[in-house]
Amino acid sequence: VERPAQVRESVAALVERFRGGQTTALARAISIVESEREGFQDLLHAVLARGPSARRVGLTGPPGAGKSSLLAAVANAYRARGERVGVVAVDPTSPYSGGALLGDRIRMNDLATDPGIFIRSMASRGSLGGLATTTKEVLDLVDRFGFEHVLVETVGVGQTELEITAAADTVIVVLVPESGDAIQAMKAGLMEIADVFVVNKGDRPGAARLVKDIRQALHLREGRALGDVPAHHGVDLTAVAKGVVSPEAEPSLATRTQAAARAWEIPVLTTNALSGEGVADLVEAVDLHRDWLEASGELNVRRRARARGRVRDVVDRELRRAAWSSAETTASLEAGILRIESGAATPYSVAWEILDGLLR
Amino acid sequence: VERPAQVRESVAALVERFRGGQTTALARAISIVESEREGFQDLLHAVLARGPSARRVGLTGPPGAGKSSLLAAVANAYRARGERVGVVAVDPTSPYSGGALLGDRIRMNDLATDPGIFIRSMASRGSLGGLATTTKEVLDLVDRFGFEHVLVETVGVGQTELEITAAADTVIVVLVPESGDAIQAMKAGLMEIADVFVVNKGDRPGAARLVKDIRQALHLREGRALGDVPAHHGVDLTAVAKGVVSPEAEPSLATRTQAAARAWEIPVLTTNALSGEGVADLVEAVDLHRDWLEASGELNVRRRARARGRVRDVVDRELRRAAWSSAETTASLEAGILRIESGAATPYSVAWEILDGLLR
Repeated sequence: VERPAQVRESVAALVERFRGGQTTALARAISIVESEREGFQDLLHAVLARGPSARRVGLTGPPGAGKSSLLAAVANAYRARGERVGVVAVDPTSPYSGGALLGDRIRMNDLATDPGIFIRSMASRGSLGGLATTTKEVLDLVDRFGFEHVLVETVGVGQTELEITAAADTVIVVLVPESGDAIQAMKAGLMEIADVFVVNKGDRPGAARLVKDIRQALHLREGRALGDVPAHHGVDLTAVAKGVVSPEAEPSLATRTQAAARAWEIPVLTTNALSGEGVADLVEAVDLHRDWLEASGELNVRRRARARGRVRDVVDRELRRAAWSSAETTASLEAGILRIESGAATPYSVAWEILDGLLR
Repeated sequence: VERPAQVRESVAALVERFRGGQTTALARAISIVESEREGFQDLLHAVLARGPSARRVGLTGPPGAGKSSLLAAVANAYRARGERVGVVAVDPTSPYSGGALLGDRIRMNDLATDPGIFIRSMASRGSLGGLATTTKEVLDLVDRFGFEHVLVETVGVGQTELEITAAADTVIVVLVPESGDAIQAMKAGLMEIADVFVVNKGDRPGAARLVKDIRQALHLREGRALGDVPAHHGVDLTAVAKGVVSPEAEPSLATRTQAAARAWEIPVLTTNALSGEGVADLVEAVDLHRDWLEASGELNVRRRARARGRVRDVVDRELRRAAWSSAETTASLEAGILRIESGAATPYSVAWEILDGLLR
């Protein structure tokens, strides 16, 4: 079967169309990166030669918090100002069952016909480089395409999702009265990444209480930040995900967020995404946070941390690819498994043999 | 400051004490592995020279499902049979806030005074090798120490937790009527890893309905397994976590589980951990599953998959360590960041330079 000419388009030609603002080029670039097709690294290298330009906003929170509706409301507000918006929605699909449950996406349908908005749903869990890295690369593509705003939505339940959210400049954590108390939010790590808190479905019973609980928890955290930092604190998010902590690492995200919290007072807003109540305040809070990011220098700190994390991601991924795409390694692994079963080796001795063949 | 003699104990001496059945040696070995102290790989290599012997049971489910209480009830049942039990509880602590919330552990306090039971709570998220790998290594230590049973408890919310649970021979998924419907369970991937389902707090409203929903979902899944397998299916859990899929890989966990499901009919039990109702049935189901694992050959398949995953984990971790523990790499990274900021490089070109220095 001969592949259509479009599929054979070179990276250089694609980048040119991308820079020319063709949405089909963006969509195709995303597909190439998502499936790690040949040349995807060259594509990213070319696209990232231009620095970041979009305002990146992350929305996260438990399932059912109304994130998609709120995202649609915020996106509409930007569109009303004449600004273009790219949206990346990460589906909390099981690593086992694969397919996307598209229910949440349906609410965004009214946006989908607007040419000033681009929506991409990421459902793949089988990504060779890991969902977090791939999603961050897709965010970069959308960023460099020229949208004024890039919105990313994740379900804040796992480390992967938190890591993706941390790739935004401004993180909105959305909670609802039913989604559990502030303690649960703290457990899930949401408390530490929020730049703006939103209690959505604010007309429901318990909303005022939740606002109060979040404020109290934020207050407690600030108190803690001024006192001793426990041993577990100050762990760099990217480093955790990566499995390494650089000796020269910047102050960790947690530490920085704590420090920044003194200058940026995290607002706790109440919204009703469906009626639109509170959305204007949320949009304003995001704008104010952006101003603060730029004025305080925090934006550059976050971008530098992201660049460092990306280099590490790419190195780690290429190391894994080098290891496991080689027929030699795979053969050593299979032979090793038999020796482990017979008691002649352990996973560690087999790993050491494989490493000897890989590293300088 | 001179370190106490105990800290300087050699790996060989520790392994000897470990093999002699000294609980302090097990505790110390776990600490060394958890903190990846010098020689931890040698320690694991020595301990894993003996094959697996314990029956590994994983308990997972959403927060508040009563996993700890159920685990305590099952552990007590084993103790009543005179069998020794090792317990590893993985705390769903935020990667940001670090510290462990010990509430759930308290219920296990009555077990803690029994010398026939060993309990270890894993709270660290800052582990250099990643929580999943470290926890699996701790499970191996507990396994090789000589307990008849090793129980591991995780909150089934993220990929890390699912991966840890999959390191058990028998996986019990615990749900409660309030924990959401069967669809939610499927989304979280719990449906695919369960060998035994338990509806705990079975006297609450909605319990019978939940049992019915789970049975229906299992039935649907079985039907699906007999038909076409969608493209996303058959993704090996370890490979996903690793970011690689070996061409010679065994049938994936999902595929195997589906095949095995035809032979092993997944029971859906009702328990009340606090009153003890249904616990005997659960213990019996786990025993029966063990018999099936051994008779069907599935135990060896699972162990082989685990050995393969471990080799990959260790290789990947050592590659990361080789990359990021070198002063040269870190210097290249920091110089690269400056060049990225000035527009003279991208994360990709910096990564390529670093890789050139690392790989053969």
